[in-house]
Amino acid sequence: MTASLLKLVAVLGVGIVEPSSAVLRADDLGAVRGDGCFEGCRIQTSAAGISAVDKLDAHLARMARSAAGLEIGFDETAWRELIALACAAWTMPGEAALKLVLTRGVSGAPTGFLTITELSPDYARWRRDGLKVITLSRGTASAAFADAPWLLGGIKTLSYAVNMAAMREAERRGADDVIFVSADGQVLESPTSSVLWTVSKTLHTIPTGANGILGGTTQHLLFDRAEQSGWTVVTTPASMDDLHAADAVWLTSSVRGPIDIVELDGKARPRHLELDNEIRQLSGFPPR
Amino acid sequence: MTASLLKLVAVLGVGIVEPSSAVLRADDLGAVRGDGCFEGCRIQTSAAGISAVDKLDAHLARMARSAAGLEIGFDETAWRELIALACAAWTMPGEAALKLVLTRGVSGAPTGFLTITELSPDYARWRRDGLKVITLSRGTASAAFADAPWLLGGIKTLSYAVNMAAMREAERRGADDVIFVSADGQVLESPTSSVLWTVSKTLHTIPTGANGILGGTTQHLLFDRAEQSGWTVVTTPASMDDLHAADAVWLTSSVRGPIDIVELDGKARPRHLELDNEIRQLSGFPPR
Repeated sequence: MTASLLKLVAVLGVGIVEPSSAVLRADDLGAVRGDGCFEGCRIQTSAAGISAVDKLDAHLARMARSAAGLEIGFDETAWRELIALACAAWTMPGEAALKLVLTRGVSGAPTGFLTITELSPDYARWRRDGLKVITLSRGTASAAFADAPWLLGGIKTLSYAVNMAAMREAERRGADDVIFVSADGQVLESPTSSVLWTVSKTLHTIPTGANGILGGTTQHLLFDRAEQSGWTVVTTPASMDDLHAADAVWLTSSVRGPIDIVELDGKARPRHLELDNEIRQLSGFPPR
Repeated sequence: MTASLLKLVAVLGVGIVEPSSAVLRADDLGAVRGDGCFEGCRIQTSAAGISAVDKLDAHLARMARSAAGLEIGFDETAWRELIALACAAWTMPGEAALKLVLTRGVSGAPTGFLTITELSPDYARWRRDGLKVITLSRGTASAAFADAPWLLGGIKTLSYAVNMAAMREAERRGADDVIFVSADGQVLESPTSSVLWTVSKTLHTIPTGANGILGGTTQHLLFDRAEQSGWTVVTTPASMDDLHAADAVWLTSSVRGPIDIVELDGKARPRHLELDNEIRQLSGFPPR
């Protein structure tokens, strides 16, 4: 994936800093242990330069849960103030990515910072052409996280090295993204997005819980809105066979939005323009 | 565990910097994705203030393997120069911990830095009293990493959030450390050390490979030396029953050295002072 340009950095307790300045000490536990959590959000900025964060409450609620799961202090008021400061300074019309990062910091004092980056140029291509996706094993049993809070299931930690390695494996195989499956063949999630699919007028996704996957804020929003507009929504375990049998399959994340899968493990999938546009709009993204 | 004091920081391409200065940008992939690798080494400094790193070649060789597995560039010459610079500046007699950290950095340019910290005060206590250890599931099947390089088995990545959460779980249960077991009940490793045990005059440890565990540099050194001094050494899968049946069990890591387990899942274990001292000395650590 093409790296996206860093445009704005703000540090909790400090404010906006030069984007190129260093923000983490060499002994920050975020830097040396991937010990912290994060959120990735979409910012939309109007032609007049007014910025707003999509689903900010949902992101802050999930970050609070992640921080609680990691036993790191989370000061929601301070975060809201920092985000407001950054949004006021961000006036470039269009979309951008806001990342919120909270680490265990140094000597019990957490470190918090946020970044605003331009969208990766890949996003426009994927939104237009759809995604080629491969399946990779995540190595964990589908019930591995039950009664095992130390495995940090459902927590959006900074320890994403395996997620990133899976994305490199996809690229090596000529694909764009990955669906992780459990050691026992259950569909889990993607390295940075949730899996959802339709069969007739029913929208499906994978349950969270013992499988350790992260609940998706975009998937949640979409399911709420879809139900209101006449869809049946179902949360159910699934195998890859279920996905292959679906009418359409999407990977959805907050910044990229829902993108339909056009090739799954080397098998081409028909596209459904009208259906895809409906899913995009219900998720808060423009149609193609 | 009590945090240890940061005393010296040096950055690849820069040199020694103020320990309290920030070294990672907000978009460094080490900071936001735990995407990088590290080594933890022991420094010994003579009364005259001359510092040397234990098993430096083995650490650099493992770091090169980790970097290769992550596809991050590793410039061994530059690292050796930085380590020499830091050692020349480090003159406090006794032991200290050297950490080498390499991240994917920013825009394809890796970030490298090292830290020297004092030993945690807990180490002296553990070396004296031994370790109380609990068993926790790692959630992965014991063959999960075979043919799955994206799971980064055997690579010492910065993505240690689960390892750290397991240590907090141990503390919560009144223990000092953890032995991870696979979903199918095989002994794996500890969050920051290797497991080894003796039965009569045979020294055992767990094989690396499909189980994803990290090969231990101290365990390697110990096994080489033990074999030379008449021990039989065996690398073999094991269950917790095998550990309970062993004469003595140790967790061993580069900075802490081998520490005998005095309580395993709530069951007290007899100590073997002479045997323990032999294992310590073979590992390059002083006897009690």
